[in-house]
Amino acid sequence: MEENINKNVNALVLQTDFGLGDGAVCAMYGVARSVSAELPIYDLTHEIEPYHIWEASLRLIQAVPYWPAGTVFVSVVDPGVGSTRRSIVAKTKGGHYIVTPDNGTLTHVKLITGLEEVRTINEVVNRRPHTERSYTFHGRDVYVFSGARLASGKITFEEVGSLVPVDSIVELPVIPPKREEGSITGTIDILDVRFGSLWTNIPWEKFQNLQIEYGERVEITIRYDGRTVYQNRIIYGHSFADVYIGEPILYVNSLDRMAVAINQGSFARAYNIGTGNSWQITLGK
Amino acid sequence: MEENINKNVNALVLQTDFGLGDGAVCAMYGVARSVSAELPIYDLTHEIEPYHIWEASLRLIQAVPYWPAGTVFVSVVDPGVGSTRRSIVAKTKGGHYIVTPDNGTLTHVKLITGLEEVRTINEVVNRRPHTERSYTFHGRDVYVFSGARLASGKITFEEVGSLVPVDSIVELPVIPPKREEGSITGTIDILDVRFGSLWTNIPWEKFQNLQIEYGERVEITIRYDGRTVYQNRIIYGHSFADVYIGEPILYVNSLDRMAVAINQGSFARAYNIGTGNSWQITLGK
Amino acid sequence: MEENINKNVNALVLQTDFGLGDGAVCAMYGVARSVSAELPIYDLTHEIEPYHIWEASLRLIQAVPYWPAGTVFVSVVDPGVGSTRRSIVAKTKGGHYIVTPDNGTLTHVKLITGLEEVRTINEVVNRRPHTERSYTFHGRDVYVFSGARLASGKITFEEVGSLVPVDSIVELPVIPPKREEGSITGTIDILDVRFGSLWTNIPWEKFQNLQIEYGERVEITIRYDGRTVYQNRIIYGHSFADVYIGEPILYVNSLDRMAVAINQGSFARAYNIGTGNSWQITLGK
Repeated sequence: MEENINKNVNALVLQTDFGLGDGAVCAMYGVARSVSAELPIYDLTHEIEPYHIWEASLRLIQAVPYWPAGTVFVSVVDPGVGSTRRSIVAKTKGGHYIVTPDNGTLTHVKLITGLEEVRTINEVVNRRPHTERSYTFHGRDVYVFSGARLASGKITFEEVGSLVPVDSIVELPVIPPKREEGSITGTIDILDVRFGSLWTNIPWEKFQNLQIEYGERVEITIRYDGRTVYQNRIIYGHSFADVYIGEPILYVNSLDRMAVAINQGSFARAYNIGTGNSWQITLGK
Repeated sequence: MEENINKNVNALVLQTDFGLGDGAVCAMYGVARSVSAELPIYDLTHEIEPYHIWEASLRLIQAVPYWPAGTVFVSVVDPGVGSTRRSIVAKTKGGHYIVTPDNGTLTHVKLITGLEEVRTINEVVNRRPHTERSYTFHGRDVYVFSGARLASGKITFEEVGSLVPVDSIVELPVIPPKREEGSITGTIDILDVRFGSLWTNIPWEKFQNLQIEYGERVEITIRYDGRTVYQNRIIYGHSFADVYIGEPILYVNSLDRMAVAINQGSFARAYNIGTGNSWQITLGK
Repeated sequence: MEENINKNVNALVLQTDFGLGDGAVCAMYGVARSVSAELPIYDLTHEIEPYHIWEASLRLIQAVPYWPAGTVFVSVVDPGVGSTRRSIVAKTKGGHYIVTPDNGTLTHVKLITGLEEVRTINEVVNRRPHTERSYTFHGRDVYVFSGARLASGKITFEEVGSLVPVDSIVELPVIPPKREEGSITGTIDILDVRFGSLWTNIPWEKFQNLQIEYGERVEITIRYDGRTVYQNRIIYGHSFADVYIGEPILYVNSLDRMAVAINQGSFARAYNIGTGNSWQITLGK
């Protein structure tokens, strides 16, 4: 990682479930630029399925680690807006900041990268002036406003608000991969939607323990709530180019986890595969 | 609002009905950067339904007020490209500039924020060189070119072209909300598409006159061309968190207007509700 | 074209078939910003149909020429990722750079603008450190990394890697337009998707040789694999405004090529027209 030029201005990166079809994200950009015209602003994605905290959590782990330390992420998937859910800013062990409602959005970043410190946002000072009556758009009035002030150096991390224990934040249930004799079982976390690939929570390092070489066939079993919906032996390859067009492949995805795809086809659509803790996948010799 | 660093360079914000699926918006960005490499360029939305001037007008009022004064917006929803419709730049009472065909796109900004001055674009000088033969992409050859020159300080507002009367610009028909004994009737302007909420044109200040408190139930009647399509008493709350998941709610949206939604559901889809002047909504005690 | 302010930093513009629904494009942005925090980064489109190299090639020719010389484009539509396909950077005759797998993505830019020089990427030096094991996301680990280094002046074009002959790059088959007695026949290259217009490969200059004036009717014949699927005489106009709403029109599109549309309708949907070399269109007197 190379250094930022302006040591006091870091990038601000936004994620929401608002879509880009209306003016909501643009209003957030306007608030950020009103805080500082120097601030570089980018998008993670705004196409998180509405209210889908699990997806928001996984998209963060897919993107955050590739940004320079100091980058501030704002993630607003907030079914509880207006409730008593806390608003927090986490500092990750990688030196990134994430501004978010405390609703499980940090699950995977906490699990995989780790969190250094978490602070609650003090909304008395960290809120757009004259928005006390706003109950429905904290993304604009609290989160992006606080994130922009932090990224542009107008407030320090300490000035966000009080420390809260890292252990106190809300986490979604995660089932860790389980090693058995000659096999490993995990869950299908998410799809690589446009390509229909299944992304599992099984890290490449754990799969390696099975001592399977590239080019060998691996037995794949996919179960939904215990019922087998797919079972086949498929090639373990480096990349799609290792199999024919239309052939399935087991590979290591860009997050260093095991994934299953059909070369130039959609595995998820071909076999009606979904995601979440009810979808188990076993890789065996 | 804080000050811009470079007093002469303001942000440029683009809105179109082109979508982001092809190279049209990128060509506009390229033209803007060719005018000035210093210019920060952002998007409002490019997903306006093709030719839907009403939606373009509402998206502007949803986003423009949150940007620093001096920001230049370019809105290209232009079914009359190549006709004699005028090309104009409006200066709003909030100090923002909007570059657009004169076809009704400014309806809501004029009504709600107000316009200070309007000038027609003098295409002899404010047009990309050597594009006189271009009849179909004024967004690229006239609008973004003029907007970029204005935002970057290469021309002043006066150099855009001649003043025209604010009253001369095209406006779409708008039906103002009507107060009756114990109720108020407005129109359903637009949907918050991803969340299926109905956004009405009834300002919160006017609703307040009915003296209904948070937590009380309000009688909602929705009519299409005079025929009742929905009638129910629903809770008036601060935010979705005030009702159960799946329960309807009346609330104040992020534009300070009355809105109706189902918590984590789609009101519009549940009852087949549309938008426009034929869709009336009455809120009563 | 005006000059860049910082002579050493050019814009970086990204195109992929990844969509914006997950974190992949954002990871690429993060890599680019890690190379240089000064680098301005933009999007061409990320909605190329998965694996559709032809579309990627056409979107480049639609956008590249409007950017300042020196701009670096990264295009990642890469069905052969992990195969032996080369990774290259082309310098166009317009002074733009394009970083891409060598798979036909440069077909139209080579044909229309021309290529000055092509270099293969030396992945020993031009690859994110510690990504040698990454076989599936060269967009992040090779292409955007190399593009960002070139755009920010950290490497020169010469430092990309060795020169390869311009004639050695992969090209998709293109059928040039053919002049006959009183008519000209071309192919339907692509749709202006949201508006349903057909964009042909017939340049306006060639059509002019038929000596047809604006306002005259032109005989249009569309054939699919030799079978006639549409035949009619339609008006040759400047822009949609020259015909009634719902009426077809032949016009010159924003790339100076002949196009066919229905004013405020979709020609492609109305007559089930597709794109590619099997779709022929003849314009005659």
